[in-house]
Amino acid sequence: MRIGLLGGGQLGRMFLQVAANYPYTVKVLDPQVNAPCAHLCDEFVVGDFADAETVTVFGADCDVVGIEIEHVSVEGLRRLEKQGVRVVPSPDVLEIIQDKGLQKQFYQQHGIATAPFSLAETAADIQIAPPFVQKTRKGGYDGKGVQVIRQSDDMSSLWDVPSVIETLCPIEKEIAAIVAVDANGQQKLYPLVEMVFDEALNLVDVVQMPVQLSDEIIAEAERLALKVATAFGKEGLYAVEMFVTQSGEVWVNETACRVHNSGHLTIEACVCSQFEQMWRILAQQPLGETTALSSAAMLNLVGGKRQQGEARLSHLDDLLRQPRVYVHWYGKNEVRPGRKMGHVTLTAEQSTALPTMIQSIKPFLSVEAKS
Amino acid sequence: MRIGLLGGGQLGRMFLQVAANYPYTVKVLDPQVNAPCAHLCDEFVVGDFADAETVTVFGADCDVVGIEIEHVSVEGLRRLEKQGVRVVPSPDVLEIIQDKGLQKQFYQQHGIATAPFSLAETAADIQIAPPFVQKTRKGGYDGKGVQVIRQSDDMSSLWDVPSVIETLCPIEKEIAAIVAVDANGQQKLYPLVEMVFDEALNLVDVVQMPVQLSDEIIAEAERLALKVATAFGKEGLYAVEMFVTQSGEVWVNETACRVHNSGHLTIEACVCSQFEQMWRILAQQPLGETTALSSAAMLNLVGGKRQQGEARLSHLDDLLRQPRVYVHWYGKNEVRPGRKMGHVTLTAEQSTALPTMIQSIKPFLSVEAKS
Repeated sequence: MRIGLLGGGQLGRMFLQVAANYPYTVKVLDPQVNAPCAHLCDEFVVGDFADAETVTVFGADCDVVGIEIEHVSVEGLRRLEKQGVRVVPSPDVLEIIQDKGLQKQFYQQHGIATAPFSLAETAADIQIAPPFVQKTRKGGYDGKGVQVIRQSDDMSSLWDVPSVIETLCPIEKEIAAIVAVDANGQQKLYPLVEMVFDEALNLVDVVQMPVQLSDEIIAEAERLALKVATAFGKEGLYAVEMFVTQSGEVWVNETACRVHNSGHLTIEACVCSQFEQMWRILAQQPLGETTALSSAAMLNLVGGKRQQGEARLSHLDDLLRQPRVYVHWYGKNEVRPGRKMGHVTLTAEQSTALPTMIQSIKPFLSVEAKS
Repeated sequence: MRIGLLGGGQLGRMFLQVAANYPYTVKVLDPQVNAPCAHLCDEFVVGDFADAETVTVFGADCDVVGIEIEHVSVEGLRRLEKQGVRVVPSPDVLEIIQDKGLQKQFYQQHGIATAPFSLAETAADIQIAPPFVQKTRKGGYDGKGVQVIRQSDDMSSLWDVPSVIETLCPIEKEIAAIVAVDANGQQKLYPLVEMVFDEALNLVDVVQMPVQLSDEIIAEAERLALKVATAFGKEGLYAVEMFVTQSGEVWVNETACRVHNSGHLTIEACVCSQFEQMWRILAQQPLGETTALSSAAMLNLVGGKRQQGEARLSHLDDLLRQPRVYVHWYGKNEVRPGRKMGHVTLTAEQSTALPTMIQSIKPFLSVEAKS
């Protein structure tokens, strides 16, 4: 079997680390010659995964094509499907997920709780009074393409592109769950994780498992995540990001149909990691167990302020001196402020041990540029 | 930092899976164009690691050179050391370990218990009466280069090469321990494992952790493993294979100065795997924790009888259907009878669960050739 992967970034890299355990070959498509996947796959093709023709040609000799980034050509994937190549996630799912407007409407149509919203084609369409959140319908990632308009003065900074306007909801917590779905519709749910954001960079700060929530809220979030996967109705991995509101409601924020930053800690903390699960789905193998083996926390290694240039992980020894710390460097040559350069996972028998462990590694997470 | 690795087989492959978590590049030297490491490293060089000149040229631009196979040129590594390249294991250690005669003498000199032995230059030198074990001094691996001479009739099959002649000792169990040693001489010991051999192929059948032995024997084996590493006196990984005799003594059988088949289960079952530990030693990073997180068993995926040709893992889905099964395929194109093609690790909270798990996967471990 030959697996094709659109995207050669860190998610693909961690997928390849798992794929090396199995007999199938993997080829990867990415525009960057020195992408994180470049030296870890059986074949690396330099090209634009957002171009339909490139994707069609790339995938023609594959048995199955998967993704590690969502900004890929749906048209190219549709053509491959017509030629008999399996595509996971389904282009139909991907089309909805690529457009935050369609995604919100999808939740509405399926009775899936989500923050109240309206759609706007241009900035001029946006007539409601602040505070609210503007999200570009297409192309956002890692907090980019999302801004909070707090007061009337901020209205001048509205983006003049098609966008989703959301009520600024009173968020208590941000959580996520990954659902794996096989070709028979069988579902496996990973334990919920909880996310704490860094206000300045709007990047995930700490992802933690288990969540500190009531049994009722956990049950509701799990029900919602499974409902999202059921609504999409196709095989694949669904990373469902949710808000817990201050009144204890659970709303779906957005869904990714791929491995996800919120699932990195499954590598060390679950029986079968999200990357192993992705491989199993692509290879049409039985789904793995999602059970947690320990508590865990994941922190990103992020480019420091004013750091631009060749990356340097200065504090590797400080990190590795801590017990039960797992470092994942993504192999990106160039650091930029706020860029995710890697991550660190901490595991512990008891979740009460995590806060101290997190504090002890926090000074070492900033990635610098070689001077 | 640039790490050079002599050997591109399965041990190198699992090392590369770990090395992908870190910012240093790895180049690999192996004579086979399609070696298991070929597509997983930053640079792959085709060449003979047993040739001094090839090794010297290969390693000249590396900061450190390591091994994943012991049959490499000690002379080449000595030259690299003189040029200022770090070499782990030390060529002095490797020279002893490559020659089972020197190795046995080394144990004797350091007061390390080992089976009584004598050395023979030729078959004619061997005058003692069977039963005994003949081991070729050089070049053996995976049970090759070892034969048991049970009776006088077998004397005609003696190999006419320099060999170690060992008393056939009354073995109760075969066990192993891996010791990691850093540049400061600090040691970390992995939990002991127990091995059960397949009589027919003389390959490891099941490696299991924890061992079923008395506290006294465990303490003695641990003391002995640490003593071996101390005697070698250099940084590196030492896989110490030992016999427990029927009278409860512990004897060192032989030592490998590299990652080892008996340590594969550390990938899933220990905080820091032997491959991560190898990376840390080569990169001069702090040693990782060797603590066990669960019980585990490891079984090799082995070429079946009369199977020769392009390899096929027919039962992958049967294996992956079992809970807590981890498959490691080595990416060797060609299967041969008895050839190690991969391995499977099982983990369990309680070791009492392992025998049933082992039985349930045993039918699926044989690798066939595509017809």
